[in-house]
Amino acid sequence: MELDFSKLDGLVTAVIQDHKSGRVLMVGFMNEQSWKLTVETGYATFWSRSRKKLWLKGESSGHKLAVKEIFTDCDIDALVLKCEELGPGVCHEGYQSCFFRKLEGSEWKVNEERAYDPKAVYGK
Amino acid sequence: MELDFSKLDGLVTAVIQDHKSGRVLMVGFMNEQSWKLTVETGYATFWSRSRKKLWLKGESSGHKLAVKEIFTDCDIDALVLKCEELGPGVCHEGYQSCFFRKLEGSEWKVNEERAYDPKAVYGK
Repeated sequence: MELDFSKLDGLVTAVIQDHKSGRVLMVGFMNEQSWKLTVETGYATFWSRSRKKLWLKGESSGHKLAVKEIFTDCDIDALVLKCEELGPGVCHEGYQSCFFRKLEGSEWKVNEERAYDPKAVYGK
Repeated sequence: MELDFSKLDGLVTAVIQDHKSGRVLMVGFMNEQSWKLTVETGYATFWSRSRKKLWLKGESSGHKLAVKEIFTDCDIDALVLKCEELGPGVCHEGYQSCFFRKLEGSEWKVNEERAYDPKAVYGK
């Protein structure tokens, strides 16, 4: 389960895809430790670049991502993790997917309804 | 169509998904110029980190990616591009998707047959 962490300052790109619908839910980054934790625990764990710490997705919201299947690419520097969402949405803004904005002409338009109230979950 | 290129040294992550099956075909990176070219031309264009140049996917193989829909995430630093593959596969190793290896236990196993002969296309 070797990966190449050298190309992105110790990180690999991790695409999270809903295991049933195939929808891309989020994109995050994993360092070697978060990758090992992901495999060992079965829950997607990232390296937060902004907070500079390990980040078990769902640690505050409870909306964890249970990993069902894992794929890597030809360069072993990116991952696709097919996951089950343990919650209504992965996005901290209340949407099922972080990719809730679609390009329409030259503008980003919100393309779906919120799946939950982020204030009720995150208190902000 | 503003994006945040600041978090990854001038790049955003771009996930390419088959517009019909939803399969993740590849993950690449775009700088501002390749992003603009992608929107203007309708064909996925990346920044090659290894070759340090603009990279129209399919420029040598002919296997271009015709962009059908574009989504961005909450942080506007990642993209999902739903594309039609103009060829049998996007991977330079001959597979439909670059994500042809699946984690089985603790080992990466090739999970599919080649879709084309890379030697015939790339001559190597």
